[in-house]
Amino acid sequence: MSERKDADAKKKLEVFGKGILEEVEKGKSPTFTTLSRSRSNVKYDEKAGVLMLGKNPEERNFVNVAQAKRFMQTVAIASKCYKFINENLHTSIRGLFYQLKYSLGEDVDENIFNEQAESNPLIEDLEVSLGVKREDLNLNANRKGVLAGNLKIHDTFGGEHQLIDAAKQGRSGWAIPSDVDNEIEFTDVRAKYVLVVEKDAVWQRLNEDGFWKKENCILISPQGQAARGTRRLIRKLADKGLPIYVFNDCDAWGWYIYWTIKTGSINLAYMGKEIATPEAKFLGVTMEDIERYDFLKKMTMKASEVDIKRAQDMLQYPWINRHKAWVEELNKVIKTKTKLEQDTLQGPKLTFVGDYIREKIAAKRFLP
Amino acid sequence: MSERKDADAKKKLEVFGKGILEEVEKGKSPTFTTLSRSRSNVKYDEKAGVLMLGKNPEERNFVNVAQAKRFMQTVAIASKCYKFINENLHTSIRGLFYQLKYSLGEDVDENIFNEQAESNPLIEDLEVSLGVKREDLNLNANRKGVLAGNLKIHDTFGGEHQLIDAAKQGRSGWAIPSDVDNEIEFTDVRAKYVLVVEKDAVWQRLNEDGFWKKENCILISPQGQAARGTRRLIRKLADKGLPIYVFNDCDAWGWYIYWTIKTGSINLAYMGKEIATPEAKFLGVTMEDIERYDFLKKMTMKASEVDIKRAQDMLQYPWINRHKAWVEELNKVIKTKTKLEQDTLQGPKLTFVGDYIREKIAAKRFLP
Repeated sequence: MSERKDADAKKKLEVFGKGILEEVEKGKSPTFTTLSRSRSNVKYDEKAGVLMLGKNPEERNFVNVAQAKRFMQTVAIASKCYKFINENLHTSIRGLFYQLKYSLGEDVDENIFNEQAESNPLIEDLEVSLGVKREDLNLNANRKGVLAGNLKIHDTFGGEHQLIDAAKQGRSGWAIPSDVDNEIEFTDVRAKYVLVVEKDAVWQRLNEDGFWKKENCILISPQGQAARGTRRLIRKLADKGLPIYVFNDCDAWGWYIYWTIKTGSINLAYMGKEIATPEAKFLGVTMEDIERYDFLKKMTMKASEVDIKRAQDMLQYPWINRHKAWVEELNKVIKTKTKLEQDTLQGPKLTFVGDYIREKIAAKRFLP
Repeated sequence: MSERKDADAKKKLEVFGKGILEEVEKGKSPTFTTLSRSRSNVKYDEKAGVLMLGKNPEERNFVNVAQAKRFMQTVAIASKCYKFINENLHTSIRGLFYQLKYSLGEDVDENIFNEQAESNPLIEDLEVSLGVKREDLNLNANRKGVLAGNLKIHDTFGGEHQLIDAAKQGRSGWAIPSDVDNEIEFTDVRAKYVLVVEKDAVWQRLNEDGFWKKENCILISPQGQAARGTRRLIRKLADKGLPIYVFNDCDAWGWYIYWTIKTGSINLAYMGKEIATPEAKFLGVTMEDIERYDFLKKMTMKASEVDIKRAQDMLQYPWINRHKAWVEELNKVIKTKTKLEQDTLQGPKLTFVGDYIREKIAAKRFLP
């Protein structure tokens, strides 16, 4: 039922290892090539609508005083991941760090493996160099996000196959894992669209209303900023032909979450199309809503400096300011210095949030 | 199958409302009584082993310039919650805030409803005054936490009953909701103990190993600090006679998470025994482990000032310094200025973390 994609990763690791061995045997300094992940090599690909890495290669060379230690650590990581795949066991970046520390002792720089700081450049080197995701190397990233709807999950895990019905998870929903590609499959998707809701509390509200049942949609919350697994799953659902509507706060954080889902992010530009969903549309809440729903006038909040600054920054991005509707929206924020939370839609009655979404979708009233 | 406990809350809200009405009709100023939640009224109850509120009452009085607005807001909250219960709908503190704002406009102080700041004192006033939890008033708190093991969940939600098998949730586990009391029941608990694991990544490691299956335990991660729902669920599982073992980092944050589970916390002292599990034991990781597992010597990290300060503070708490083993443990931290993460146990091999837990439980080597 489920496919084991990391067979591909395993083969690539073997080629990587053999390449290095051959160079050593030939008396050459071992090297491998990756791509620069510096800001200057992050480009917005207009045709794809995605932030991607450019083509600037970077060579890692063992015989280079500045690189020797990191080269050695990268090879050690590759070796550990190869072992994890063979054992069919997974771990986190932190678990990998301690495995290396066990083998290499003081020679392992903790700061490189601190996922909080998103500074795990050696693993990224491997991902880019091999053209695989860390999840394919049996490394779990932080997971966050929840889903309910008419779809089934075939999860082969720890040697057992489970069939999970995402329509039968009650108040909790199905927790979206880090890896949604390997030994996991999504079938029986019976839905007209995917609704992504920024806040878990609003997701719970809609779940209680049976919104996804009545509207025949798949209801996802990234529970704030979307983790890799959730972003990847949204991409996969879009690949099944489902429209993706994102329902967030009208503020700096809400916009950021939307654009991260849509175009990807600078940090994960190296994953490019794998993790971006340019088809996504912004359903709300918007400044324009305030003109349409009278009660929202008294529901606005004062925009913070961060919100204003973010709106100004966004107006500079060519992939945003090409959309007239976004320019108008952001200018309204800057001009009125107000913002709006999605929770406000519960003001008139708790179930109004669902009515609002239905109206918006029926009228196709989205921001691009 | 599932019980509706908030029928009790509904009755209490009616009594609360009628009491206020009667006072008004008699021409008196309406009042109600709650308990002071100031630090001076938070006590450690030695017999119960729990942080609880003392008996200092506080009267809220409508005819009091300083209190009139807040009194009015509290009555409005009670009225909204009564409506939510009748509608059989739930919302968050934020949703409640916007419902009040819709009705009362500018008269609603946002800062009182900011859960992030844990400053929602009017709802706490109601909880304490009525002797109910906010979950019984159909208010959802933030949820976090995950569970796997041999138990079944009967979840009646949005008018439908779901039977969820926590042994069949694959890599994801069952997401622990905010409310684990109303219209939800836990049955078929076939386990010898409950293991609470601070970090989600380590929970995933153990879940993949089938640890809970092999050891016949219930595997919970609060995913960091334990949310109300997770703390309450641990309490309920302890009530079923299961021993509770907590496996955290050996650092300020890990200890804090443990003591919050065990004795409750100052912020939630008003919930007292409902949310505390004094039976809980600290399985690890400990400074003492370093003497027993040789490889851990090179796995320690430098303790931060926060860690040292926290250890010093803990030594002042009578409910901690009464335990000789904890005094020794904390003094080791202060003396050696080191700390240890639970992830280190993956150093020798990924599955060692399970071996370690088994050894500790077999030897009953816990901190109290």
